[in-house]
Amino acid sequence: MQQSREGLLIIISGPSGVGKGTVCKALMERNPNMRFSVSCTTRPPRPGEVDGLHYFFKTRDEFLQMVQEGAFLEHMQVFGNHYYGTPRAYVEQQRASGFDILLDIDVHGAMHVKSACPDAVTIFLAPPSMSSLKTRLVGRGTETVEAIEKRFEESFHELRYMKDYDYVVSNDVLDIAIGQVEHIIAAERLRVCRNQAFIESFQVKGEDGE
Amino acid sequence: MQQSREGLLIIISGPSGVGKGTVCKALMERNPNMRFSVSCTTRPPRPGEVDGLHYFFKTRDEFLQMVQEGAFLEHMQVFGNHYYGTPRAYVEQQRASGFDILLDIDVHGAMHVKSACPDAVTIFLAPPSMSSLKTRLVGRGTETVEAIEKRFEESFHELRYMKDYDYVVSNDVLDIAIGQVEHIIAAERLRVCRNQAFIESFQVKGEDGE
Repeated sequence: MQQSREGLLIIISGPSGVGKGTVCKALMERNPNMRFSVSCTTRPPRPGEVDGLHYFFKTRDEFLQMVQEGAFLEHMQVFGNHYYGTPRAYVEQQRASGFDILLDIDVHGAMHVKSACPDAVTIFLAPPSMSSLKTRLVGRGTETVEAIEKRFEESFHELRYMKDYDYVVSNDVLDIAIGQVEHIIAAERLRVCRNQAFIESFQVKGEDGE
Repeated sequence: MQQSREGLLIIISGPSGVGKGTVCKALMERNPNMRFSVSCTTRPPRPGEVDGLHYFFKTRDEFLQMVQEGAFLEHMQVFGNHYYGTPRAYVEQQRASGFDILLDIDVHGAMHVKSACPDAVTIFLAPPSMSSLKTRLVGRGTETVEAIEKRFEESFHELRYMKDYDYVVSNDVLDIAIGQVEHIIAAERLRVCRNQAFIESFQVKGEDGE
């Protein structure tokens, strides 16, 4: 009764290197009721990628037709090349079936989805500080100094959107950050606006004079 | 860094018999950072009651002076007799010291406090159903049928305000309900609006060109 039937739409953003992938993976493993959003893309499938599981693979024409139909909660074209988009129907179907949908998406996509779905829960995963983020990016040891500087500048741009989110979680200690996201999810299920049926169950009874 | 310095103001309401006292007591025991709000009253102290611990005892003149000065977040007169009020200064001092303040208060008081402190977190503790509430009230076995009917009618009145709260927790299984309130408290600490200093720490650094 207390738990709302419709699943939550949970948007997680955060700069490169903040550990978003690790947090999302752990959330998926620990919460069987949670599913990753499956994106549409026009890029060709890589070996082993399954349509409908990793992506919904679309031709360019199909994708642009979907854009015209308003079938995406957000979409973007990467480097003037392939398109990526979050299909509205998939998200709505999963939520209607009671699954929480996790969306790992950049700040611009997040703001588009929040406009399209005002009941989405937006969480910004932040580094404890800018210097710690730089340490992590450098620590990967897989990129050139220029590439790291570019990522760091992008991160700074993303951090400016933190204030537009509902929640901010600092990924200082991984397990604490994961637990904090889980607190947010548990609390959001208890919001009055998500429990209308429960609340109305009392009002109907009252009007019957019970 | 992540945890906001100022304590939360947590308002819990719910009808008579719903188990509010038990939930609040458990919250206090489990969270050393939480304090009950201490009310002002014009009724005389009972044996063992300590001024400043159980109540702030005031004369009628002192109390009415405080009302005029806007010193209460809410106040009421019970049965045209003694006054009770929630002192603004005590709540603000405790919160400024980092303590979460728990306020167990009726629906009217709660709405007054929420107006005075829009950042208060309001939680309605609901019975799983009206019939279960009636069972609990009858089960106490300490009251007449008329008294039970009166409480039940008051409960119905209070339940109409559920929709004006931030969160609704159904007290079906006590430990689950307590855990849910704790999820809410943990999540509320992570709200962007409560972490301005953390968020600004990035913007200042950015403007310095770091």
